[in-house]
Amino acid sequence: MGKQITSRGEDYSQWYIDLVKKADLAENSDVRGCMVIKPYGYSIWEKMQQALDKMFKDTGHENAYFPLFVPKSMFEAEEKNAEGFAKECAIVTHYRLKNDPNNKGKLMVDPTAKLEEELVVRPTSEAIIWSTYKKWIQSYRDLPLLINQWANVVRWEMRTRLFLRTAEFLWQEGHTAHATAFEAIKETEKMLDVYAEFAETFMAMPVIKGKKSEGERFPGAIDTYCIESMMQDGKALQAGTSHFLGQNFAKAFDVQFTNKEGKMEMVWGTSWGVSTRLMGALIMAHSDDDGLVLPPKLAPIHVVIVPIFKNEVELMKISEQADIISKELRSKGYAVKFDNRETHKPGFKFAEWELKGVPVRIAIGPRDLDNKTVEVARRDTKEKQVMMMETIASEIPGLLDRIQENIYQKALAFRSEKTTRVETYAELKKVLDEKGGFVEAHWDGTAETEAAIKEETKATIRCIPLDAVEETGSCIYSGKPSARRVLFARAY
Amino acid sequence: MGKQITSRGEDYSQWYIDLVKKADLAENSDVRGCMVIKPYGYSIWEKMQQALDKMFKDTGHENAYFPLFVPKSMFEAEEKNAEGFAKECAIVTHYRLKNDPNNKGKLMVDPTAKLEEELVVRPTSEAIIWSTYKKWIQSYRDLPLLINQWANVVRWEMRTRLFLRTAEFLWQEGHTAHATAFEAIKETEKMLDVYAEFAETFMAMPVIKGKKSEGERFPGAIDTYCIESMMQDGKALQAGTSHFLGQNFAKAFDVQFTNKEGKMEMVWGTSWGVSTRLMGALIMAHSDDDGLVLPPKLAPIHVVIVPIFKNEVELMKISEQADIISKELRSKGYAVKFDNRETHKPGFKFAEWELKGVPVRIAIGPRDLDNKTVEVARRDTKEKQVMMMETIASEIPGLLDRIQENIYQKALAFRSEKTTRVETYAELKKVLDEKGGFVEAHWDGTAETEAAIKEETKATIRCIPLDAVEETGSCIYSGKPSARRVLFARAY
Repeated sequence: MGKQITSRGEDYSQWYIDLVKKADLAENSDVRGCMVIKPYGYSIWEKMQQALDKMFKDTGHENAYFPLFVPKSMFEAEEKNAEGFAKECAIVTHYRLKNDPNNKGKLMVDPTAKLEEELVVRPTSEAIIWSTYKKWIQSYRDLPLLINQWANVVRWEMRTRLFLRTAEFLWQEGHTAHATAFEAIKETEKMLDVYAEFAETFMAMPVIKGKKSEGERFPGAIDTYCIESMMQDGKALQAGTSHFLGQNFAKAFDVQFTNKEGKMEMVWGTSWGVSTRLMGALIMAHSDDDGLVLPPKLAPIHVVIVPIFKNEVELMKISEQADIISKELRSKGYAVKFDNRETHKPGFKFAEWELKGVPVRIAIGPRDLDNKTVEVARRDTKEKQVMMMETIASEIPGLLDRIQENIYQKALAFRSEKTTRVETYAELKKVLDEKGGFVEAHWDGTAETEAAIKEETKATIRCIPLDAVEETGSCIYSGKPSARRVLFARAY
Repeated sequence: MGKQITSRGEDYSQWYIDLVKKADLAENSDVRGCMVIKPYGYSIWEKMQQALDKMFKDTGHENAYFPLFVPKSMFEAEEKNAEGFAKECAIVTHYRLKNDPNNKGKLMVDPTAKLEEELVVRPTSEAIIWSTYKKWIQSYRDLPLLINQWANVVRWEMRTRLFLRTAEFLWQEGHTAHATAFEAIKETEKMLDVYAEFAETFMAMPVIKGKKSEGERFPGAIDTYCIESMMQDGKALQAGTSHFLGQNFAKAFDVQFTNKEGKMEMVWGTSWGVSTRLMGALIMAHSDDDGLVLPPKLAPIHVVIVPIFKNEVELMKISEQADIISKELRSKGYAVKFDNRETHKPGFKFAEWELKGVPVRIAIGPRDLDNKTVEVARRDTKEKQVMMMETIASEIPGLLDRIQENIYQKALAFRSEKTTRVETYAELKKVLDEKGGFVEAHWDGTAETEAAIKEETKATIRCIPLDAVEETGSCIYSGKPSARRVLFARAY
């Protein structure tokens, strides 16, 4: 079908790029670092959005919308946050173009339309949102404030990669305000759980919940929680973060409330987000050398039906059966595509729908009509089986559930296989170079050791797992005491 | 309840601003011209989005996402479009901030991080999208291309007004590509019909479909179609536009295709959009001096239940009944709020939910428990009636349908009353000054006459209605011949 992609073994990076482009998920635009999300890719993102949005609402959150621009003086109010993002901000300085007098038909920035104060295109919205919360919060009755926003943000990345790292990306950012530290920490943990549940249930991607080390924290947070996933090349990918902000933003924007006793207190905050980066994670967690493998819960098309025919009469008869099956499946809420194009051969269609990751393919030929059968192929295992036409529609839901489960189990087994416990620094380096994956090792808790290991091995501490067992050990690097193992990996 | 709003009679503009703020729909942000859409306002916008998105998909369109930024050279490629938006563009010129050496803790734009080419924050996306379509379209088999995008756009407006005119706003923009002019015009008309159906069916807002005069066309379009609605102050509001772009953007970006005969041809295009401006239209079309009046199909809460109680025992008994009613209504797909706050009196709650436009209020007191009744109040007519508790849940769906229909009929009757046919320029001026509304009058079709009337009366030609009767007449201004009447009005 002329849409070959590089194999993973040959060049994993190129495989990823080929797959993203040839499965029509996204492409680079003519704007530096910005991508175009193509309809098929966007429809997967929409499925993610719908599932997450429902989970957010079910946990009491409401959506709202805040400005794209942040005035510089507001942006710099929380110093650590500002410092963390200052080097990668798009800055609006003018508000008008005019005709270029030296270049007919061309435009130039109008120097007379310079802004008094520059505007930062939001890299994240804590500043603009907390400056608004100051107006919304007076009393303990106004708390908690549980708000989410679906938006685009811009971070001027130097090296970009479709979905994984782009200058503009789409995301959701939750921003909540609470009366107590306890409540805010509970919220931070609750949203981490929501992300983990989403990743595992919808994306079929097992994740490890943990806390970031100080060096990897969100700028302006007291604590950053994360979910970490394992890609097929043995590199880790951070799939979502949830931050306990303490009172940092409340202090920066003077957001206080009157408590039940009538006294003024600073508000406590959280923020949490996942982005179109999840698309990259989804692709790299499950797909193979033939293309995308989609978990049914996020597949825009669940079942494709491909007719095998030599003439119009055969196509007509097959179409009748395909219609019956489609109708029944659609009534159960599944998306079905009947690929009756006469311009392409079945083999081409098989390859195309495999590339696009449709979980189940049904092929119907003239002999199937005689036998009242269909051929059913699973995308995940490539297994084919002959099934009865009469019962196929009632078999599909169970089959899709099994595919969803199998994809998850496969990723889980892969991660287990790629998780290694080591006792020495030499072992860590050996595992990273020869096997990859997560490495569980003792660490003395200092930024110096973390930085040294990163410098020497390119591996970072992905997280301190929430379920890490308390055990006495000694740091693989410094030999100093350690109370628990942390997770090292090279990462995206 | 301390949330009084100015009456429409006293000051219509202030009434609108008060209502938007006090019903928690939106507020001005600290960013010039940009608004914050608050959760309640956003939940109405979400209902609009859902309904429109389904209508777009049902008519064969897919969603995608294109970059926020447009490089200046790309922006200026279609000259008329560029000229039309150049004066109101936010321009990104730098990509980094740095510490200000003269001002500790403050940041400044890093002069060494100046972009080689400035980026325009999209005021509309024709340029970036057609530059992408060039890569996507080679053959007639790639057409039609039917794509929609939900996005934020920025137009640097000098005078802003919540929802109606803001520097940043949210919208959807459809961009389609076709093999023939005929198909593109059909698409333009089809999407105008979709907008009209949405406005009338969901927003309960009657609209007039028409074409814009040359002077009011979208920059870069051959023809602009629009839907025009009438607000309660007698001013018109353009609620949506659909543009036939001809081959203007195809030519600007050299988008050609090989036709069935193997010859190269330029592609034909359309674009169409509605924005958060619809929120302003919705508010101004129906609301009254007590607050918002929402058509049930766009109401985030359909029914609010307010208990009338003196003590805990009464509240408990009322709650049991409220739960039964709520459960039954929710199972039918309606959103129900049981307002059991003990901190506020029923009168306060009544006023608050009226302000927020909840279509139906159910009050339950101790006597109702004895009588097995409830008191039902309609937001639109303010009528109250006593109904039986047992049948209330089965009565509500019909009641909501009648409310939806009544709101529409009321707006339709208002528009009819505010539509006047005139034969002379003196009459036009008199009607505009004394009565307002739409004025049907003959016009000679020239830009000069249109400009003169606008200059002298502040009224513009809203549209040439698609259903305008062909009749010979003479222009009210110039006396020259005219073939049909057009619609004049002062407008938002």
